[in-house]
Amino acid sequence: MNYPNGRRKAAKGTASKTRSTKPDFSNRGMSLEEDINVTNDFYLQSGQAVIHKKPTPVQIVNVDYPKRSAAVIKEAYFKQASTTDYNGVYEGKHIDFEAKETKNKTSFPLNNVHQHQIDHMKAVDQHGGISFLIIRFTPLDETFLLPSSSLFKFWDEQWNGGRKSIPYSAVKEEGVPIAFHFQARVDYLKAIDKLYF
Amino acid sequence: MNYPNGRRKAAKGTASKTRSTKPDFSNRGMSLEEDINVTNDFYLQSGQAVIHKKPTPVQIVNVDYPKRSAAVIKEAYFKQASTTDYNGVYEGKHIDFEAKETKNKTSFPLNNVHQHQIDHMKAVDQHGGISFLIIRFTPLDETFLLPSSSLFKFWDEQWNGGRKSIPYSAVKEEGVPIAFHFQARVDYLKAIDKLYF
Repeated sequence: MNYPNGRRKAAKGTASKTRSTKPDFSNRGMSLEEDINVTNDFYLQSGQAVIHKKPTPVQIVNVDYPKRSAAVIKEAYFKQASTTDYNGVYEGKHIDFEAKETKNKTSFPLNNVHQHQIDHMKAVDQHGGISFLIIRFTPLDETFLLPSSSLFKFWDEQWNGGRKSIPYSAVKEEGVPIAFHFQARVDYLKAIDKLYF
Repeated sequence: MNYPNGRRKAAKGTASKTRSTKPDFSNRGMSLEEDINVTNDFYLQSGQAVIHKKPTPVQIVNVDYPKRSAAVIKEAYFKQASTTDYNGVYEGKHIDFEAKETKNKTSFPLNNVHQHQIDHMKAVDQHGGISFLIIRFTPLDETFLLPSSSLFKFWDEQWNGGRKSIPYSAVKEEGVPIAFHFQARVDYLKAIDKLYF
């Protein structure tokens, strides 16, 4: 079997022959969100964890109900999420995280995260859940799990004259690198094992 | 202070004077979903648990980006949820549930639940989470927490010639009644304590 680009598609026998036949395990072309969704599917199918992305919250204003066909939402607006995007259960623990990509190479700008997400993650931690950030430095093609404790530290410091971003070096030191695997494209459970179990 | 109808509004000093001044602790007028949302807000504010309703999943097809105003979703469709509606963390445990109202008085029809929700709840249980159903018999104004183990039993039996509903008596016997309280309108944490802790 030949998986030209490490994409999940290949597993279904639809490997594109127009691509290089050299293995290419980079994430190019797939967004972090797509990679995590594929990973979560794999975790679910292989019985490792039950973690889902929450749907995008939408305020529905107007819906059309045509005869003999599906309801059509005709007017709706994006709402701000009050939680993180991903949650679920792993080894009996409640898992809660947000995933963010940055085009920066040297730091992760804190304006990628919102106060209500911080509040949510703090609440999750207080109740015995595990919360964290998955950060991808896209130009470096490097992905990390950063525990929320580190995030909170930098978040709180920024209001006391601290910097408005988390240095790449700190993410590397306080976080755990997440390896790319064929099916678990963002294999964050291993990073959780390392940090929390 | 006078809370004419046990509604949350009253707490904000907007008690309607046109209503009866006799305390009325029934749930009339509020849907189970609204009651649970109020309860979850209260649990969050009082630091008891972090549980949220997931947004309704929507497939967005067409979005308009007008100048100087918010993006408008012009065409979208309802998607089937792949999980339960509510989840979060309580006392270190992952909590996952679905809430259903029925107009029946004598049984809970199983067609209120879908196979993919059963699959999801089974997976949650396998990973050490706590999953259940909150069932309200609207005409009786009675609400119960039914553990997923009972639900699975009736669900699986229906395919072997069993009945297509769960008798009220079974819900009463295998579930735990959920009391109505002023702020915790569907005080299911107490029922969780009784069953799982």
